[in-house]
Order: sequence, then structure tokens, then C-alpha cells
Amino acid sequence: MSVTAAKGFTAAGIVAGIKENGNPDLALVVNEGPRRAAAGVFTSNRVKAAPVQWSEQVLKSGQVSAVVLNSGGANACTGPKGFQDTHATAEKVAEALGRGAIEVAVCSTGLIGVLLPMDKLLPGVETAAAQLSEHGGEKAAIAIKTTDTVHKTSVVTKDGWTVGGMAKGAGMLAPGLATMLVVLTTDADLDSETLDRALRSATKVTFDRVDSDGCMSTNDTVLLLASGSSGITPGYEEFAAAVETVCADLGRQLIGDAEGASKDIKVEVINAASEADAVEVGRSIARNNLLKCAIHGEDPNWGRVLSAIGTTSAAFEPDQLNVAINGVWVCKNGSVGEDREKVDMRYREVHIVADLAAGAETATIWTNDLTADYVHENSAYSS
Amino acid sequence: MSVTAAKGFTAAGIVAGIKENGNPDLALVVNEGPRRAAAGVFTSNRVKAAPVQWSEQVLKSGQVSAVVLNSGGANACTGPKGFQDTHATAEKVAEALGRGAIEVAVCSTGLIGVLLPMDKLLPGVETAAAQLSEHGGEKAAIAIKTTDTVHKTSVVTKDGWTVGGMAKGAGMLAPGLATMLVVLTTDADLDSETLDRALRSATKVTFDRVDSDGCMSTNDTVLLLASGSSGITPGYEEFAAAVETVCADLGRQLIGDAEGASKDIKVEVINAASEADAVEVGRSIARNNLLKCAIHGEDPNWGRVLSAIGTTSAAFEPDQLNVAINGVWVCKNGSVGEDREKVDMRYREVHIVADLAAGAETATIWTNDLTADYVHENSAYSS
Repeated sequence: MSVTAAKGFTAAGIVAGIKENGNPDLALVVNEGPRRAAAGVFTSNRVKAAPVQWSEQVLKSGQVSAVVLNSGGANACTGPKGFQDTHATAEKVAEALGRGAIEVAVCSTGLIGVLLPMDKLLPGVETAAAQLSEHGGEKAAIAIKTTDTVHKTSVVTKDGWTVGGMAKGAGMLAPGLATMLVVLTTDADLDSETLDRALRSATKVTFDRVDSDGCMSTNDTVLLLASGSSGITPGYEEFAAAVETVCADLGRQLIGDAEGASKDIKVEVINAASEADAVEVGRSIARNNLLKCAIHGEDPNWGRVLSAIGTTSAAFEPDQLNVAINGVWVCKNGSVGEDREKVDMRYREVHIVADLAAGAETATIWTNDLTADYVHENSAYSS
Repeated sequence: MSVTAAKGFTAAGIVAGIKENGNPDLALVVNEGPRRAAAGVFTSNRVKAAPVQWSEQVLKSGQVSAVVLNSGGANACTGPKGFQDTHATAEKVAEALGRGAIEVAVCSTGLIGVLLPMDKLLPGVETAAAQLSEHGGEKAAIAIKTTDTVHKTSVVTKDGWTVGGMAKGAGMLAPGLATMLVVLTTDADLDSETLDRALRSATKVTFDRVDSDGCMSTNDTVLLLASGSSGITPGYEEFAAAVETVCADLGRQLIGDAEGASKDIKVEVINAASEADAVEVGRSIARNNLLKCAIHGEDPNWGRVLSAIGTTSAAFEPDQLNVAINGVWVCKNGSVGEDREKVDMRYREVHIVADLAAGAETATIWTNDLTADYVHENSAYSS
């Protein structure tokens, strides 16, 4: 159901010919109203793709009528021409829908440093506009895939209102986020300030804590659009919880489909002095290549966890650290704990708990193992 | 030649039986005087191995008579018993040489979280002491190898005095540093303060700028011992330059033998506003897994260089960045530059220049590509 699960939205996904392999590569999501409130969060990478620069401007008004997304090219590091192309894409959507271009957000994903084939993209916009449908959410989710092996959607329905969404992303996944593109929609009747608050609150503990390979993309974008067509205004807490649930579900799907991964690793940091400490430690563990290789080899190598913790500035005493892997406390008080032979690592999901023994705060970061397939996929991607 | 190239040093490398495969695993380096001045730098990882904790204390006096090094076990995260074992090792060396234990530095390398087999290590110390020789430097260099495929030594000889050394390290190589162990010796007649100044100055621009996999070890140690037996006191600048040359040579050898690597990558950041900016950007590029995969695939993927630069806090404007790969400016002004087809990446050494166009400072970081062999070696290491 994806972005059309909520009432008041139409979508389409088509083959524009941007991808050489002939797969779907252009998606359009339209907010049919009555409300067109929106919020967005974008990559914190200082090298921002043209569509990010454009969409950041669009979101300033808190109004978005449509989102056009293409795979097959990131339109990043493409200079003034790249920005002109993004602008022309928004204009084309506006023309097809009879709206203003400044209400059209643009997202792109694919190889950096290559101009988009506008001779294919612009006619594609017309085709997509002609195919808009209340049942188009699935096709839109398929059209934004790059190296994704599956398309990702999620829906939460409450009393008369719904939050749904789609996501793409499989590599270059890190906080601030993966040539990760996410479009969420809701038919709840809410203003853009409320959407913004709920979206930032949700992404902070979901997409920002997904870190597949430590690499931050130039294109990451998460948008939340509200049509108001349910006529219902849910309470903030209830709405924010629904948004967080959808974001967490999509984030988990991104990790589950990360390039070349064979393990999904949940890094849970507990008893930290602050949430910031917990996040710093979790991220350091999640980015440790040696640990990620060990997990790939089903080796509960807790020494590499301690090595990673030791590089942080978090509050802890080395001789009070405890580490559990899949429920076995293999490290106690910074030294050898329970027998590592007890650790069962046969399954795809691996759970690492790092106990800092320094407070009461916690954070969870999701990551993947590091595999020969990841190397292969990313050494051959642009060729 | 290694650590016995300089006069006034003896060394040995033997099989103590710590390694199950029967390879040499214990080295002893002795300063025969007349001077026994020394300086050391240690891992900045807050989780420090027992031998690092011990040797930091030893170095406080600026006097070191001997260094005992074992491979086959890092003695890290081993609790109070691990520290007692390090102490007992130093006592054993002191007894064999007729010195005080507080003049004996200890280095260990190998798996974290495992106690050393003291029943093998202590008799090994006696064997090594009995085999000390002015020609033992090569054997010592061999005995400290873990996953190293070659042993690493370097010597610079000036007018009547010499700086020589040995190093081990092949993975977990990052600033502050790789279960990297380095022992440098000189027969120059210098006090420990001068040695310390020259060593810190050299490591800052050599070992601290070697970053194979971003993983900082719990055991890294670099020691510089002076025997004074040449009777010559060189000028500081000349001496510091010799130490830096030996450190740079050994650092380059570490990168050249990094686990599973097929490319040695020189990341040169130029026109930075500050040296700190240049180092931050260089390290961010050197740690980008996606770029490291691309280089492995001989793909001059400059977009991933820009992505990495964009995550830093260095001074730059995205539309003024330039990137050259092996002499071809593939990115100009943050966008497409010269034809990437011109880049020849067939050779092991790859040279990336990142021009921040923000000042006049520069820094060079050495790293490696990311390969399936790295994954294989590090997913099977502890088994």
C-alpha cells in the first residue's frame, strides 16, 4: 500500500529509461488534499545533491503538493546544470498537475557525478502523471529501487487515520542517511509544524540510528506529507508514535536489505551516562570493520567491541565494561566472562549489548556485517 | 639489521611456544649502554592492554634497559591477572639480565581477551636472553609478526650514528594505532627528553597518519631507545629527521602489508585552512568503505571522495572542491572534471589529491583498499 495507504494520495511508478537495464526508475507521489502540509529531513552531508538543495527550499513553506523521485542517477556533484535539471523536473511536474513548481519536492538516487538524461526524464514525468492512481503506491516503491533487492513499504492504521510510506536504500547508509529516500504520507489533519516535530522526533531514533556502512550520502531525504482527508486530528503523542513505528519498520527493512549483508546487527548500549554517550558508543561499535567481519564469521569477538568502545569519549571505566552477544555475557568487568562457545550465531539477527555501567541512558543502533559480497557490489557498482 | 643496526644493542627472536603454529613468538631487545635513555608513545585507545599500562609506567623514568615482545596474544582485556602476567614477564627479563624490572618495557600482540601461556612465556624469556646477539635484530623482527606476511625493518645511518628499527602490524591499523608494535634504537648520545620530542614529532606525521582500517588497537606501542654508544650527539633537527625517515619507512611497510589489501592509497589533502582540517578530511576519505571498495575495483569514483569530505567540519565550499586520482583532475569545482577514463589504476599505489581551496595547509594519510580478502582474514582470525 505504501504511500497510497493514507487517503488523499495518488502515486505512480514507471519506466522512464533513465536506467539502462529497463527497470522502473521514476515515481510520482501526489497529495490530492484538502491539506498539503509537509515536513522533511535531509542529509547532513555538506556536499548536497541538487535535488536536496531544491527540496530544502520547497519544504521551507511547509507545503508540498507532489514528490517526484528518480533512481538511476543521484544528480549530485553536477554543478549548476544539475540544479537546473532538478528545477526543470519540478516545473514539468507542476505543469502536468497544474500547481506551482515550488510545491514540488524532488528526490534522486544513483551514481554521483553524472547528469541525468533529461530527454528521458521529462517525458517520463508526463507518463507518470497520466498513470497516477490511488493504488499506485506499490509501483512507486518499486521505481525508486537502486541496488535494493526488495522494495520497502510500511503502514500503520489507527482510528480512522493512517500513516504509510516507502523507502529505498541499500548502501551508503549512515545517519544523516543512504542515498536513502523515504516518503511518508498520512491522511491525518495536521499542520506542517506538527508534522515536522513528529518527523524529527521519529527519525532521530530510527533512520539516524541505522548505520550500515558508516557512509553518509549526498541525497538522503525523508518526507512526510499530510492530506487531511480523514478529517481527523489525532493527539500529538499518538501520531508521533505511529510515525516512529513506520520509520522504525522501514529502517529495519533497509538494514535487512543492505548491500551484501548476511547479518543484521542490533547494537544496544545500556547504562550510559547520557543518551549522546550511548549513541556515540553504539555508532563506534557499528562502524568497526573488524567487528563486522568477525560477526560475518559468526565469531563472538567481544575484544573488538571493547576496542571500539575505547576509542570514544563516553563516560566509562574500562574495568567495568560488560558485553553480551546473543544473550551470553562474554565480557564481564572488562575481562573474560561467560564461555564464548555458548554464543549461538547461526541466525541472521545478532544482538550485541554493551553495558557501560556509567548511568541509566540507552540507545540502539542497527548495522550489518561486512562481507565479501559488500566489497564485490561496491567495487563494481559504477562500472 | 633492524634494532641492532645501532651500536650498543643486542636482540633475539625465538620460539617460546605461545603460537600454536610453532612460529617465532618472543623477541628481546637489550640496550647495552652506556646510556639507557628512552621515549615511548602508546595507543590512545582508552581500553589499554596490560603491557601498555605497564610500559607507560616504565617510560615515566625515561630509562629502558630492555624490551620484551610477544606475539600470539595481546594480553588485553585480561583483568588483574593479565597485569600480573605482564609484571612477571618484566621481572623474569630483569632477573635474566641483572637489572630492575621497572627498566623493562613489555609489548604484546595477538588476540584480545585471552591470558598468555606463562608456562611457555617465562622459559622463553630465559632462552631469548641466552641468545642475545649484536646480529639478533632480524630474528627479533620476525618473532613479533602476527598476520604480517613479511617482517619490517628500517635503518638510517648518518655521520657516525644510526637510527634503526622494526615494526609489526597488518590490521587494526589506525592512528593511535594496529596491534602495531615498533621498537627504534639509536646509538646517538641523547637524553630521554630529546628522544621524546623527536619521537612525538615523527609519529605525529607518520604512524598517526597510517589508517588501514580505522580500527584502533588496545596494544599499540612505539619505543625509541638510545645507547649513546656512538659517543656522538647529533643536532636535534638532523636526529629528528632521521627518526621521521625511519618511522615513515616502517609506516609505509605496514600499509604495504595490510591484511588482504591490494592497493596502497596515498590520500593527500592540499590547500586546507589548517593542518587539523587537512588531517580530518584525509582521515574521512581514508575511512570511507565505499571509496575503498571502489579503489579495489580500480574505479576512480570521485563522488565517494566528495561524500566523505562532506561529512567533515573542515573549511571548504562544496562548489570549489577539486579531486585528482593518479594525476587526473576528475572533479573540478565540485562537479565533473577531466574524463575519468584517463585514470590509470593498474598499479598497487593509488594517489588521491583532495584540494579544499580553503588555505595553504596540507596532510597525507596512507590507507588501503577494502577487499574480500580483508573480510575473509578478519572473519576467521580468532578461529
